Order: sequence, then structure tokens, then C-alpha cells
Amino acid sequence: MSQTIATAPVGNSGDRGSLLRASMAKRAAAVEAAIDSLLPPVPGSEARVVDAMRYATLGGGKRLRGYLAAEVASLFGVAESGAYRVSASVEMLHAYSLVHDDLPAMDDDDLRRGQPSTHRKFDEATAILAGDALQTMAFEILADAATHPDAGVRIGLVAALAAASGAAGMVGGQMIDMEGEGRALALQEVERLHALKTGCLIRYSAEAGAILGDADLSVRSRIAAYGRDLGAAFQIADDVLDATASAEELGKTAGKDQAAGKSTYVALLGVDGAAREARRVAEQAESHLDIFGAEADRLRDLIHYVVDRRS
Amino acid sequence: MSQTIATAPVGNSGDRGSLLRASMAKRAAAVEAAIDSLLPPVPGSEARVVDAMRYATLGGGKRLRGYLAAEVASLFGVAESGAYRVSASVEMLHAYSLVHDDLPAMDDDDLRRGQPSTHRKFDEATAILAGDALQTMAFEILADAATHPDAGVRIGLVAALAAASGAAGMVGGQMIDMEGEGRALALQEVERLHALKTGCLIRYSAEAGAILGDADLSVRSRIAAYGRDLGAAFQIADDVLDATASAEELGKTAGKDQAAGKSTYVALLGVDGAAREARRVAEQAESHLDIFGAEADRLRDLIHYVVDRRS
Repeated sequence: MSQTIATAPVGNSGDRGSLLRASMAKRAAAVEAAIDSLLPPVPGSEARVVDAMRYATLGGGKRLRGYLAAEVASLFGVAESGAYRVSASVEMLHAYSLVHDDLPAMDDDDLRRGQPSTHRKFDEATAILAGDALQTMAFEILADAATHPDAGVRIGLVAALAAASGAAGMVGGQMIDMEGEGRALALQEVERLHALKTGCLIRYSAEAGAILGDADLSVRSRIAAYGRDLGAAFQIADDVLDATASAEELGKTAGKDQAAGKSTYVALLGVDGAAREARRVAEQAESHLDIFGAEADRLRDLIHYVVDRRS
Repeated sequence: MSQTIATAPVGNSGDRGSLLRASMAKRAAAVEAAIDSLLPPVPGSEARVVDAMRYATLGGGKRLRGYLAAEVASLFGVAESGAYRVSASVEMLHAYSLVHDDLPAMDDDDLRRGQPSTHRKFDEATAILAGDALQTMAFEILADAATHPDAGVRIGLVAALAAASGAAGMVGGQMIDMEGEGRALALQEVERLHALKTGCLIRYSAEAGAILGDADLSVRSRIAAYGRDLGAAFQIADDVLDATASAEELGKTAGKDQAAGKSTYVALLGVDGAAREARRVAEQAESHLDIFGAEADRLRDLIHYVVDRRS
């Protein structure tokens, strides 16, 4: 896969690349701190499930969803304390879906980010409960964020509703994914699968920032469309990575989708074809940001980051 | 177990018993209709998970939680359409917890209400996803109910928050339950376990009706205390039933808790001692309703129903 799969900005890509990396590192640390403070360890009988929740949510990852929520919110001048609570909430929703997807009855994955998946580190029952509790907590934080002085009541409600549609999409996508194992899905089906499974939550993460910022509906739709296409580009790049990168680079089992007989963009389009499709969708994502000036450069650079990543 | 375990109202208990049964049947049908319309079957790849969600939520059960929400709401003159949506939401939270608790990695139960449990009827992956989606949908309905003309925005938010605490309790309780298998828990531990595992959601179901009715905080606290004690009495009676009733009466595997080495009220207090404790807690539940007149008679009768039931 080429390192210039996306429409790289000419000339200053190096500078902008390091600005993005610094911005992501700063926000990832803030999201981590927000999760740590919202989910402190507890003593007693519930210690184990809380430890599993912390294991599944803390300690890194790219924090793409939390970054999106916070970076979009900053476009609209939202106070950081409120934005990072919402970032923590979307990362909890993301973590809950990963913990459950990794379960033996689902994708049966032993590794996640190079570490034992939650049910391997703890046990299956604890992983099921930790995922359940992470979903509960994500909604609790959104409901609570709405009564926070930084954000209006209605805003929080709309955010909770949008989050629910993001969370519902994950289940629908996983269902299609499993149902489609071992049979060839058409390109349209694969697109729909990923639009639901990963796309809904990435789109919502971006949209949540605009909701928090009380953006006009037309602006909010642009941000949502950007998030939707960013999510699609992310997934296509993920398929290319799964087919071309090593387990060491990925931090998870490589070639797993192919082995499971899953229909991927690579299976349908080939590695080069999938890379071209990622580029096309990336350009489309960028087009939705036309209404913004330089203040949206981090969101533009994020598209390139997502498509060009090696892990 | 005596049929007069609770503090039976003298004289008119027969009439009031049939009034309660009629009221429960009417509301159960309305809750069923609300769930059916909120969760219609869908075609395509997601049909299976939606079918499992419908299987887990439709087709009966006592609807204790949905009844509580609607009956308390009626005390405060809440419109039925809004109340039954909240009833549907609490029943979805209840169903999600049952589907996940029955899983092989958890309580490994093959029967639920005399029918195959969801993972036996479908499969384990579908049951995990159906439970996940039911939790999501419950919060989606609460967030949406808040924008319904019958209820204020803030009310819905508070309801969502309270629901989250109810849902969080279920996970904590299940964790203590599993952690405590095979070792003897003290009475206090068993009380805490059940206060979390079943008590939180029953308390919330009652409280949700008062929240919808915009009740004063002091009145709302009384209703919450009633719900808490009703839930405790329900659980103690459940332990007595598990030890004394047949599988046919229960519609689920009998003597299961004992076989799993779980600490129950019966193990700690004996059958008679547990029945006495149920009576004591039932009286306490009734005392919280002292501020109401005859309009709360159905809630009073519900205490007797819960403690005297044979299934």
C-alpha cells in the first residue's frame, strides 16, 4: 500500500503531519484522564468488573473517536471539560463494542492492541458485564453532561439520541458481519455493513462535537457527512492493512478477516482497487469541510492520517 | 410457604385481589403493545437480532417493572402514551439483563418463563447482540420520550440518569452474585447483592413514574423507598419460591441457586425465617405509602401479590 494513498496536501504535509500528531497526543492524554476520573477503581466485590472496564478503556489506542468529538467541539468554541466528557463517553461505547465483538461466541479474538483481549485477561462473564456496564456508563455521562453548566439540556438529549443511533448501528453491523461469514457479500452489502458497524459511531463522534457546539443544522449535517466518509475511508484502509500488514504492526491477529471467510473491500476490489477506493472516499470526506477555513485543517489532516496509517 | 405471608388487608382482600389482577392484565397488554410498536420486525440481515429482541421482550411475564412505572405515573395524572413508553423502556432493560444473565458464561440457564432462553432459541452471539441492542434502545426511548409533548425535557434527562443507575446496579449485582458462588455470603452481602441486582431496577421503575409525574422530591423519595422495599420483598419471596416450588410452577429450573452454591435468604434464614423476613420488608414497603389514600391501593396490593405469588 502506497504511503500517498490519500490526497496529500502539497508542500507542507510534513509540518501539518506533526501538528496533527501533537494535537492527537494532547487530546488522547486528556481523554485518558477524563476516563480515569469518571471510572476510578473500586474496592470489594465489584472491583473485578471495574478493573475490566478500566482495562478495556484505558492505556491507549488512537482515540480517533474521542479526538473527533473534541476537535469538532473546539471548532465551535465548546469548553474542553464538557467536550472531553463526551469524548470519554464515545470511547466507552467504542470499547464496549470491541469487548463484546472479541468474545468467543462472536469474533473470538485473543488479541486487542497487542494485549490479551478483555475476556482473555479476565474471563468471559466479566467481559460481558464490563461491556454492558460501559454502555450504561456512556449514556449516564451523556445524560449528566446535559445538566453540566457548559451545555444546555436539549443539547445533551439530542446527543444521547444520536449516540443511541450510533450504538444501535454497531449491533446491526456486527449482525450482518457474522451472518455474512462464509458467503460472498456484494460491494453494496459490505458498504452497508461497515457504515453500520464502524461508520455510525465515527459519524456520531464528529456530530457530537457539533451538537455540543450548538451548530446550525446545515453545518451539523456537513460535519456528520465528513464523519461518515471518514469512517468509510478508515474501514477500507483497515481492510487493506489487514491484508498487507503483519500482526506485529497491527497489534492484533493479521489476515483474520480473510481466514474467517469475511467479505472485505480487498476481497471484492483487490489491494490496489481498495486503496483507490479509500482515496476516492477520502476526497469526498474532505469536500464536506469546504465551508471551513484553516481552523478545520486538523480534521483535513486526520483523513490522511486515517488512510495512510500502518496500524 | 403460607398464603398470608404479607400483611393482608382485612375484609376486602378478595375484591382488591381481583382489582389488582385486572389492572395488571390491562397494563401488561398496553406494555406489550408499546414494545411491539417500538420494536417491529425488520427484513434482511438484521432480522435475526431483532427477532431475538422481540423474543426476549414480548410474550408475557408479569411486567412488574412496566406495571410499576405506569401505575405510579397514573397517581400523578401522566398521559398513558408517555407512561407506557417508559414502561416499555424499563422492560427492555430488564429483558437485556435476563438475556445476558442466562448466557453460558454467566448463569448458564436453558429455560426462561418455561421457554428456551434466548441463546438456546437463537445462538449465543445473537443473544449477546440482542441484549446489547435492548439496552441501547431503552436509553433511546428515554431520550426520545423527553422530547415527547407529554413530558418536559429535563424530566426525560433525569429519567435517563436514574435508569442508568438502575442499569449499572444490575451489572454490579450480577458480579457480586458470581463472585460469591461457592462461598457463604453474610446476610448483609446478600442484601446488597439483591439491592443492586434486582432492587435498583424495580426501585427505578417506581421512581420513573414519579419523575414523569414531576412529583415533589419528598414524594418521589417515598415512591423510591417503596420501590426499593418492594424489590427486596420480591427477591426474598423469589428465594423462598426457588426452594419450595416446582420447575413447572416456576417456568424455570428449580433449586438452581442452591445447586450453584449461591447464598440465598433461605440458606441463611431457613424457609420460615425467609418468609418472616419477606413479611417484615413488605410491611416496611407499605409504610412508605402512608401519604397516599385509596388511590395507591393497587400499589399496596402489589406488595401482597409479589410476596404471595407462586411463580
